[in-house]
Amino acid sequence: MSINSSCSGGNNSNNNNGGGNSSGGSPCGACKFLRRKCVPGCIFAPYFDSEQGATHFAAVHKVFGASNVSKLLLNIPVHKRLDAVVTICYEAQARLRDPVYGCVAHIFALQQQVIHNNRLINWWVNWLMIC
Amino acid sequence: MSINSSCSGGNNSNNNNGGGNSSGGSPCGACKFLRRKCVPGCIFAPYFDSEQGATHFAAVHKVFGASNVSKLLLNIPVHKRLDAVVTICYEAQARLRDPVYGCVAHIFALQQQVIHNNRLINWWVNWLMIC
Repeated sequence: MSINSSCSGGNNSNNNNGGGNSSGGSPCGACKFLRRKCVPGCIFAPYFDSEQGATHFAAVHKVFGASNVSKLLLNIPVHKRLDAVVTICYEAQARLRDPVYGCVAHIFALQQQVIHNNRLINWWVNWLMIC
Repeated sequence: MSINSSCSGGNNSNNNNGGGNSSGGSPCGACKFLRRKCVPGCIFAPYFDSEQGATHFAAVHKVFGASNVSKLLLNIPVHKRLDAVVTICYEAQARLRDPVYGCVAHIFALQQQVIHNNRLINWWVNWLMIC
């Protein structure tokens, strides 16, 4: 992925199969932030580690809400959940940085770049046809 | 705006100054969806009309949650809130269409297009320098 997001599956004590903290160690970053017990099978555990995960989850919770994200992840195949978490984190962080446009500001900037490049290409095509 | 979103300030009985339904008429689309009384000063009323607004708000509520969006809008200047609602609606609808990537899929597609166009432009620049 070429989007810039610092969220990823980084909890080494868990796997990416939807498992939670079953080792009796630190809770995952989400449960740490929500101050709740991290149970085995915790939907967030594979993607929010106990250290930086809590900070990342805070942004996700503030923008989307833990409950909405949990429901969303439950409806996504396990092998696709990491991509979903990364894009959700990206959207959340973008919305906190720019509350009005969020990551849509990135879409506008890219659209402008595509329009500019297409004009340049069309100009050159016309120029080549004349020459 | 060139993003495709059907959400906009369309409630003719309200203005864009953060006012709600004070005419005693239909509740705004958000209050209709939430089945609550639409009070004067309702934060959602200027942007979700009584007809299509409820459908649009359903997507926003499912992805972001009414409470999170309300808090977000309250922290944005009134003249910027319509842009915020449009981008939030766009993100919500994109996430419902594509639960894994949401509107980030659009960012990926545009990034690919920019990379492709840049390669084409670079190739032509090199060709012109040789000729």
